[in-house]
Amino acid sequence: MTDPEPILDELRERLRDSTFHRSMGIEVIDAVAGEVTLAVDVTADQRNLQGLVHGGVLATLGDTAMGLAVRTAVEPGTSHVTIELGVHFLRPGQPGRLAAVGRVIRVGRRVAFAEADVLDADGVLLARTSGTYAVARADD
Amino acid sequence: MTDPEPILDELRERLRDSTFHRSMGIEVIDAVAGEVTLAVDVTADQRNLQGLVHGGVLATLGDTAMGLAVRTAVEPGTSHVTIELGVHFLRPGQPGRLAAVGRVIRVGRRVAFAEADVLDADGVLLARTSGTYAVARADD
Amino acid sequence: MTDPEPILDELRERLRDSTFHRSMGIEVIDAVAGEVTLAVDVTADQRNLQGLVHGGVLATLGDTAMGLAVRTAVEPGTSHVTIELGVHFLRPGQPGRLAAVGRVIRVGRRVAFAEADVLDADGVLLARTSGTYAVARADD
Amino acid sequence: MTDPEPILDELRERLRDSTFHRSMGIEVIDAVAGEVTLAVDVTADQRNLQGLVHGGVLATLGDTAMGLAVRTAVEPGTSHVTIELGVHFLRPGQPGRLAAVGRVIRVGRRVAFAEADVLDADGVLLARTSGTYAVARADD
Repeated sequence: MTDPEPILDELRERLRDSTFHRSMGIEVIDAVAGEVTLAVDVTADQRNLQGLVHGGVLATLGDTAMGLAVRTAVEPGTSHVTIELGVHFLRPGQPGRLAAVGRVIRVGRRVAFAEADVLDADGVLLARTSGTYAVARADD
Repeated sequence: MTDPEPILDELRERLRDSTFHRSMGIEVIDAVAGEVTLAVDVTADQRNLQGLVHGGVLATLGDTAMGLAVRTAVEPGTSHVTIELGVHFLRPGQPGRLAAVGRVIRVGRRVAFAEADVLDADGVLLARTSGTYAVARADD
Repeated sequence: MTDPEPILDELRERLRDSTFHRSMGIEVIDAVAGEVTLAVDVTADQRNLQGLVHGGVLATLGDTAMGLAVRTAVEPGTSHVTIELGVHFLRPGQPGRLAAVGRVIRVGRRVAFAEADVLDADGVLLARTSGTYAVARADD
Repeated sequence: MTDPEPILDELRERLRDSTFHRSMGIEVIDAVAGEVTLAVDVTADQRNLQGLVHGGVLATLGDTAMGLAVRTAVEPGTSHVTIELGVHFLRPGQPGRLAAVGRVIRVGRRVAFAEADVLDADGVLLARTSGTYAVARADD
């Protein structure tokens, strides 16, 4: 069985090293092999002109949760890049704390597929995202 | 025929009013009815851990170009919200100036569809995006 | 609570009236409000040149399961048309019996969103599909 | 430069060998490296309950045009499988002759991306499709 602690630590380190994610205030809340939960406190600057959470914030949260979930599911020494990202916006988000739960659906030798739920503080589903990843081992 | 100047001015105002877009440094370069061109200078903070332009930046650029293109094609007093966003990442982007050209493919009474090319300074295609929008008139 | 029998009967009638689906041999196995299960016996004619189940068969199964699931979730007198269909092919399918489980994720006043799993006889996930639907009441 | 004749002949042979496509009546009209045009006469059996062309027919046409376009653009001895298919339905189709034009947008070492327009006899755009393909050489 995979010990979740090193996974959590590794993912937190990755986000800390990423200016893009750090500037958005994304935190890793939980991580096991194949599933990663993130959270972010949406600030006033991340709202759109209607005062709702910007779609780009929901997309980035889902995308990041999926990418990290794939990270937990591929072998060490494997790289993965996003080929395709899909976002379905289901409900407008109000400012406040949001979470994203990314799950790996399938990891193949060359391609991985993941999905994420983006939820508000009450657990209401705001967006569903899907992502396809090209997976490559160091010796490919 | 639509005079492009008021369109350009209105779109520039919209972006200026959006903290999210202003903080990314997105500018409107050109706009006619149905097609909008944006540009951004990618800063060091918008690169990922491999030093390439973050996928979220490409997605946001395409998304914004499509949304503004829809804006130019719907009647005044009409609102539009993104239902669905798709991004295909075709080539890794190097830091520098990027452009996005958003085009409306179809505006119906209730649904609009647009696409965008995200290009680097040499015109190389980095990503293709597509977006579906729910359109509503004020009296709907 | 919704009595599932009338739902099942109505969906079976819909498929029976559709030459397209009847010619593919698609059957409704189960249906409750918001979730519909279909099955099909893949014939030799529905394989591709490699002898695997044709991607179009997986796509059609998922699409049909989602459309019927939306049907169970909208009010009587409401019409729905597909705006957008997405299919992720996860594993090659061998000839034999396939099932598809379509689920409604969100039904709004104007837009509905559904997903489906397409599975082989052993319950192995072959494809995931997603669909966006424009919903209209008779008086819209 | 690539002589189009062998390409056309090879694609026609592929479709002729495919019971699935033959049963739909899909024909190859034109093919050059990177772009393939198909046509089909939609029969009464390919309409949905509203008497319109079934979405599955539009999806299959676009999917096939894209797959064959990728076929013309990869090296001999290379196989490609569909990873992901997206379909945006833009207008309802009336029975009659339909065409699909598939274009390769990018062929990489491992992944290819294509798009297709599905048009009616008057050239009106009914659907736009996109497809992602995993590409593998025989020795991979």
